[in-house]
Amino acid sequence: MRTRPLKVALLGCGVVGSEVARIMTTHADDLAARIGAPVELAGVAVRRPDRVREGIDQALVTTDATALVKRGDIDVVVEVIGGIEPARTLITTAFEHGASVVSANKALLAQDGAALHAVAEEHDKDLYYEAAVAGAIPLIRPLRESLAGDKINRVMGIVNGTTNFILDKMDSTGAGYQEALDEATALGYAEADPTADVEGFDAAAKAAILAGIAFHTRVRLDDVYREGMTEVTAADFASAKEMGCTIKLLAICERAEDGASVTARVHPAMIPLSHPLASVRGAYNAVFVESDAAGQLMFYGPGAGGSPTASAVLGDLVAVCRNRLSGATGPGESAYAALTVSPMGDVVTRYHISLDVADKPGVLAQVATVFAEHGVSIDTVRQSGKDGEASLVVVTHRASDAALTGTVEALRKLDTVRGVASIMRVEGE
Amino acid sequence: MRTRPLKVALLGCGVVGSEVARIMTTHADDLAARIGAPVELAGVAVRRPDRVREGIDQALVTTDATALVKRGDIDVVVEVIGGIEPARTLITTAFEHGASVVSANKALLAQDGAALHAVAEEHDKDLYYEAAVAGAIPLIRPLRESLAGDKINRVMGIVNGTTNFILDKMDSTGAGYQEALDEATALGYAEADPTADVEGFDAAAKAAILAGIAFHTRVRLDDVYREGMTEVTAADFASAKEMGCTIKLLAICERAEDGASVTARVHPAMIPLSHPLASVRGAYNAVFVESDAAGQLMFYGPGAGGSPTASAVLGDLVAVCRNRLSGATGPGESAYAALTVSPMGDVVTRYHISLDVADKPGVLAQVATVFAEHGVSIDTVRQSGKDGEASLVVVTHRASDAALTGTVEALRKLDTVRGVASIMRVEGE
Repeated sequence: MRTRPLKVALLGCGVVGSEVARIMTTHADDLAARIGAPVELAGVAVRRPDRVREGIDQALVTTDATALVKRGDIDVVVEVIGGIEPARTLITTAFEHGASVVSANKALLAQDGAALHAVAEEHDKDLYYEAAVAGAIPLIRPLRESLAGDKINRVMGIVNGTTNFILDKMDSTGAGYQEALDEATALGYAEADPTADVEGFDAAAKAAILAGIAFHTRVRLDDVYREGMTEVTAADFASAKEMGCTIKLLAICERAEDGASVTARVHPAMIPLSHPLASVRGAYNAVFVESDAAGQLMFYGPGAGGSPTASAVLGDLVAVCRNRLSGATGPGESAYAALTVSPMGDVVTRYHISLDVADKPGVLAQVATVFAEHGVSIDTVRQSGKDGEASLVVVTHRASDAALTGTVEALRKLDTVRGVASIMRVEGE
Repeated sequence: MRTRPLKVALLGCGVVGSEVARIMTTHADDLAARIGAPVELAGVAVRRPDRVREGIDQALVTTDATALVKRGDIDVVVEVIGGIEPARTLITTAFEHGASVVSANKALLAQDGAALHAVAEEHDKDLYYEAAVAGAIPLIRPLRESLAGDKINRVMGIVNGTTNFILDKMDSTGAGYQEALDEATALGYAEADPTADVEGFDAAAKAAILAGIAFHTRVRLDDVYREGMTEVTAADFASAKEMGCTIKLLAICERAEDGASVTARVHPAMIPLSHPLASVRGAYNAVFVESDAAGQLMFYGPGAGGSPTASAVLGDLVAVCRNRLSGATGPGESAYAALTVSPMGDVVTRYHISLDVADKPGVLAQVATVFAEHGVSIDTVRQSGKDGEASLVVVTHRASDAALTGTVEALRKLDTVRGVASIMRVEGE
């Protein structure tokens, strides 16, 4: 084994960073044996240097992250700051000064992954980021390496633990959204400002990363259709139960049936209770992958938290260190397929639509006509009502999102349709 | 991209081999883009050269596998023959003549993995075998690479599809073992001679491989305790249901609580219906992994079949080809921890024991005394009986297998115990 240690600079020492530092210390011998050389924490860049960090030598702590990544003797920079800047500039600077990079930064990778990969490649360095998607769940490596000889057709997953906790709570207790969110906040599953989670921004960033890797195509964050889960109601869960379904916030990356284009989207959807994703509870994450040869695979585990995320970071750290020692680099960006990324209107799926309608003869015929005119075929209709008011629940066969949107616009114009109570996509059948 | 192709020799062209060859042809452009060079099928060694193999150039077919691996211009040998010989000699010869190897051979890897890794290392070549365990499910790479910075404490899985199909059938229909086996045979899930599957030999080989990788310790096939599932009865499933459990054939690799030793075992066990492994249906496989930092992970998918196994083989092929191009090798054997592999007697778990006893006063006291004398603490007892005969179901707290064995021996000697109807371990709580 080489005795000269590999030097690691840690950018950020919050929940994840402090756990990375702790494990690097407590498991130093194991890491050395697995890498083939010792690893040494060479510096820790933080914003608040005065805070006491147990187990970290105060002499290593600096507020000057730029100087740390410019030192020139750093083998690997571990970036767990999050956000776009200064993370992006620090990572770029790290490559320019000879380091490889391990990052847990989904927002940055989703927005600027292609550019960062280009800088890494230019300097013949590694950029690894298993921790950026679904925390501890090995997902990027399996997609990028294990399935490298296969053709992936769909990646569908629960990639945000906060929203899964809220939806699971609504499902199991009948609580409304706000009540479930309050509990998630009280338990520390949701942040004070939950926007990034509940509006689907976090999941959309992960969808962009996953779609890019799965389809060997650049998928920008703007290419991902995004719909949050704040409008999901207890009534929606009741409807889902009648269908033998539950509701999950899903990130879905799909190859179109013609194989030439792909889509990526995040929205709440009904999935059958028999689907493996339906039983993913609490803040857990799970990702379902369908490919030509492997068939259906699922990866399940904790999608967030200091220790799980640190596990993913350290797995990458070992791989990158091994690459340094052998003088090689791992797989970089693979975007050779350059497939068209289609807009949401091209997505084909099924829909569950609840309408409030007038309780009089002929309404169903009117509604059915609108569906037919837009080429949306109806699977089932359920009517119920009294006192002049009625509700109509329509479940469609597969249709494009554009056709469904057109249908709903036309339905809203009918005098007999008082309102569209909810539209929910049905997936995983 | 390099234009000179990497040359692949395929040993075996059965269900898996023909699928590997097919995908290498139909997806040649994708493989080339992902590897960075084209791959060329340079030869296919078969036993029966006259059989027509669609899509494979007859000029590539040979019965002389030895000459093929000795050619000297082969970059990667893909071994999908199975069995110990001639696979072992061919793989060794391949390394000696400059090739890296991708194998799907669980029996060989379980028996001679260490020796084969040594030859690979001596010649600075790769030995990859993702397909040897749980078919298409990425498992070896996640354990060996993604969790390389973590400490794995337990790997527990359903790694044999045939037996899971049979047990699932017994569970869902109330069928007995023989009836369920007959259906599995008729549907092609079980071979004419099902011994390797139903007696747990196949799962034991996989357990040895998984334990070795998870604990960085050599685990020989002989170190794995093995108990088949041919004795599982409809009555056992009825007992399991009363416990809120089902029965699965599990491969369990565990680190002892003191951290210094490990165990590996294969046997039927009751697991709670709430455990993710309980809902693994049909011939699917799933492996549950528990580690210090990542927590609980699960990997799920098809555990066998031509296409899924080919997917795993091709993922390895891409990785090994990339390594060839960069002049590096991937992770080899990691056995530095060299932990003690303890015998079955040291395993600590819970037990569900059904006794046929005389229906008279004092029997329960006698039985309870025997448990106490052997240090096995009882959790619950359920008594039922009539007409002088009774049954007693005892569920214990955690105890060593040695203590339980001693208890059962002593119980058999009691006049009031007519027989021990079944002993089943309870896992996953």
